[in-house]
Amino acid sequence: MEIQQNNMGITSPKGFLATGGHIGIKKNKTKNDLTLLISECPAVAAGVFTTNPVHAAPVAWGREIINKGNTVRGILINSGNANACTGQQGVLDNKAMAQTFGELLNVTAEEILVCSTGVIGVPLPMDVVIPGIKTTFPTLGRSVAHGENAAEGIMTTDSFSKTITVTITLSGKTVTISGIAKGSGMVHPNMATMLAFVTTDVSISAGMLQKALSDVTLDTFNMISVDGDTSTNDTLFALANGMAGNEVIEEENEDYIIFKNALYAVNKKLAMDIAKDGEGASKFLEAVVLGAKTKENARLIARSVISSMLVKAAMFGADANWGRVLCAMGYSGGAFDVANVDIEFQSNAGTISLMKKGAPIPFSEDDALKILNEKEIIIKMILKDGDASATAWGCDLTYDYVKINGEYRS
Amino acid sequence: MEIQQNNMGITSPKGFLATGGHIGIKKNKTKNDLTLLISECPAVAAGVFTTNPVHAAPVAWGREIINKGNTVRGILINSGNANACTGQQGVLDNKAMAQTFGELLNVTAEEILVCSTGVIGVPLPMDVVIPGIKTTFPTLGRSVAHGENAAEGIMTTDSFSKTITVTITLSGKTVTISGIAKGSGMVHPNMATMLAFVTTDVSISAGMLQKALSDVTLDTFNMISVDGDTSTNDTLFALANGMAGNEVIEEENEDYIIFKNALYAVNKKLAMDIAKDGEGASKFLEAVVLGAKTKENARLIARSVISSMLVKAAMFGADANWGRVLCAMGYSGGAFDVANVDIEFQSNAGTISLMKKGAPIPFSEDDALKILNEKEIIIKMILKDGDASATAWGCDLTYDYVKINGEYRS
Repeated sequence: MEIQQNNMGITSPKGFLATGGHIGIKKNKTKNDLTLLISECPAVAAGVFTTNPVHAAPVAWGREIINKGNTVRGILINSGNANACTGQQGVLDNKAMAQTFGELLNVTAEEILVCSTGVIGVPLPMDVVIPGIKTTFPTLGRSVAHGENAAEGIMTTDSFSKTITVTITLSGKTVTISGIAKGSGMVHPNMATMLAFVTTDVSISAGMLQKALSDVTLDTFNMISVDGDTSTNDTLFALANGMAGNEVIEEENEDYIIFKNALYAVNKKLAMDIAKDGEGASKFLEAVVLGAKTKENARLIARSVISSMLVKAAMFGADANWGRVLCAMGYSGGAFDVANVDIEFQSNAGTISLMKKGAPIPFSEDDALKILNEKEIIIKMILKDGDASATAWGCDLTYDYVKINGEYRS
Repeated sequence: MEIQQNNMGITSPKGFLATGGHIGIKKNKTKNDLTLLISECPAVAAGVFTTNPVHAAPVAWGREIINKGNTVRGILINSGNANACTGQQGVLDNKAMAQTFGELLNVTAEEILVCSTGVIGVPLPMDVVIPGIKTTFPTLGRSVAHGENAAEGIMTTDSFSKTITVTITLSGKTVTISGIAKGSGMVHPNMATMLAFVTTDVSISAGMLQKALSDVTLDTFNMISVDGDTSTNDTLFALANGMAGNEVIEEENEDYIIFKNALYAVNKKLAMDIAKDGEGASKFLEAVVLGAKTKENARLIARSVISSMLVKAAMFGADANWGRVLCAMGYSGGAFDVANVDIEFQSNAGTISLMKKGAPIPFSEDDALKILNEKEIIIKMILKDGDASATAWGCDLTYDYVKINGEYRS
């Protein structure tokens, strides 16, 4: 597997074109608010959606298309308005967007996936959305600029665009996998929606693509937390158009493993970028659980620690407050024997042991401060209960998080 | 039921004596760090404990006494050190405290309950604790001052002491129920431990006391959230010594109902005070769910909304961001039909409707701002799915929360 630098982003895999532009959903004309993405030929599609039963119209639309096993030709993403809690009008507006894009592509609406992110409870400004799709469509293309434009068109208050491209070789063919994502930014401000899109020219069955995507999500997007709120719009789509010409993957063979590992690398990078860019974040946190009895125990514990407001606030304050880590491990629901636990904090400035076999050990507060003053901190929990491990990613809790989310909508 | 003003606090029920003092666990000599509480005769006892498997030595000690059905003569509470994550030494220290107090009272250690709150992972300074118990013991008494001292001795960074006394009449006798509590303060700073103690002279069996306490907890202490972190030390104890002379309550009769309602009032007041005094809180929030299908649905939804960081931050910023409320309702795990939901915000400045039957309705931002600028805000969710209701209490998320919890321990 090779990570590609200076590439065409989401348009790197063969047969994918993209574009992004400003059509007038956002007030600020310098901010893109529409991204279009197409595959030149029908692509198999897989999707993972928010578990929140209160979900937006595009989530219901996308879930139905994925469940039916339709092939997909395009994805339309708008930012600035989430089309959530918009009732029947939202459903109609969503369909009209898919129809408009579909007509331009000469395919049915059911071959178009839609994602929306932004303010909720406000109807989409369809008077600018429909004309905007039509004027943006002709700018679709395949280049470094097109890739960047697409990555920027899905951003809300993300402070940087998130993109990655990797290549692998399957049955002698080069297969490319690219992804873009947006994190917990806000538009108006409102929801913290996570969206991610993966394009690949791999030849794979829809079932195996879904399996790989769902599996990989457990250890990537499901292991990040910014504030524990599950959005109405969270969506991850993967499209595979087969243009790499590799032997089609239809079972869990060696090619599947290689592909899945590459997909893991893509999604991990995007998930970590989202955590790094958490609202108001000043530090990137990684919670690593080693030696757990089961994988599920490891995931529960890592997620609980990365989500704890007290741990997040302590990391903001460079406070080596390992008691909060142990406490969050305790209420995680994951089983472990306290009497076995070691806890360490780690960063570029070194490693410090705070707890050994369930008992606190003396440590230098100066060393701890040096380690925790770094921008990337690893919280390591060694359980010695078994072989399973898991890693979760997050960020610290800062004054800016409160400021961003407490600001009056205006 | 009558709420008593200007009373003797926790020493109001017949036969209870208390005291509080500074013995040297806290550095600041003006802060009490020990509270002693005794009943002149053996009292039946009930307890509710943290669900966190990582719990402190006194929690294990108290749980064993309650489970055995021992009668209890005294409770010892120290602040400044939680005796959590202190290994075998913590267990021994805890027992030594119970023994010392027991000897002074001329009872066994197993008739003494212990609670500790404060920094975790640091052994108790037994060289000051044991002499401190001995010098404080003779100051036990029954007066307004003794009640206040006891309430203050359990405080950490609570900004006010929390106490309430109510009286009821059972079989012609006046029964008194008093409670004190401490909330999510910190000492060093560290854990946010909740402790609450109820004394009553009611005559009741241990089983019925535990039943009433457990039932009432579901709708009081279990319905508050400051930051979603479950402490290693959370404990609620109730002692009933029978000195009121009412007919002993041994079944769910009318007297039981009257007693349980009074206990509910006591615990509700203490729980609300803890929420009001949440770390850094500038506003008190009440999430009310009406018309839910089941009580459990109502509780899940109310708790999810009161715990949402995005809702809490919006309330801090006086932002009428009802979408975040609906979103938190969605991921609560409680069932409801979005198409039926009404959402209102309410305060002393009035009521504003934001959503009717699952659809947003236009509202005046000026009116909303006026309502949300108040210090106490009710978030009302009307589900129209059934008859069940629940209320949860919490506070907003402020800069001060981050400051308090991000400060370097020193």
